[in-house]
Amino acid sequence: MMLAMILAAIDGLLGIGACFGAAIAAIGAGIGIGKIGAAAMEAIARQPEATGDIRSNMIVIAALIEGVALFAVIVCVLSFFL
Amino acid sequence: MMLAMILAAIDGLLGIGACFGAAIAAIGAGIGIGKIGAAAMEAIARQPEATGDIRSNMIVIAALIEGVALFAVIVCVLSFFL
Amino acid sequence: MMLAMILAAIDGLLGIGACFGAAIAAIGAGIGIGKIGAAAMEAIARQPEATGDIRSNMIVIAALIEGVALFAVIVCVLSFFL
Repeated sequence: MMLAMILAAIDGLLGIGACFGAAIAAIGAGIGIGKIGAAAMEAIARQPEATGDIRSNMIVIAALIEGVALFAVIVCVLSFFL
Repeated sequence: MMLAMILAAIDGLLGIGACFGAAIAAIGAGIGIGKIGAAAMEAIARQPEATGDIRSNMIVIAALIEGVALFAVIVCVLSFFL
Repeated sequence: MMLAMILAAIDGLLGIGACFGAAIAAIGAGIGIGKIGAAAMEAIARQPEATGDIRSNMIVIAALIEGVALFAVIVCVLSFFL
């Protein structure tokens, strides 16, 4: 009885941690990819003929942030099932 | 009886976590896509003839942030059912 | 009985720590790689003929941040299994 209550409390705490963790990872991705996207827009306005180069580099570097952020969200999902 | 009370309290905590988590993920998307959108508007104003390039790049990079933020919100929704 | 309760509580706290840790690591990667990407975009716009050099250096230095952030996330995952 006591044990079941404690286990339920643990599940609740884990769920709260997972929600906050996933949300904070989204803030990280927003800050990082936002900076890159803003700079890329200004760069295209400055040198419209370099659009192809800017686009490819923008996607490469944004993918690095995306990778870490998505992996962090998946770690948070894992906490539901372990 | 005691157990049912504790379980209800846990459900409440999970709901609070899910709501705050979804809201914080929305802040992340707001910061990131806001930066990109602002820079894109200024870029179009600076080089109106590059509007097509700027629009397509703006959508690509905003979609990356959108992906992480939406996934975080879905993780928060999941916490209701687990 | 008492021991089992304590162990369960520890598991829950470990899960919360793992989620927060992974999310904060993603913020770190977002801030760092975001700065690098933004500066690289502006650099390409300033000197479009140096695109290759800028890209290779951008990837090298972003990989350093990526390495630490991914390792931190993996350490957080490890806390589930130990």
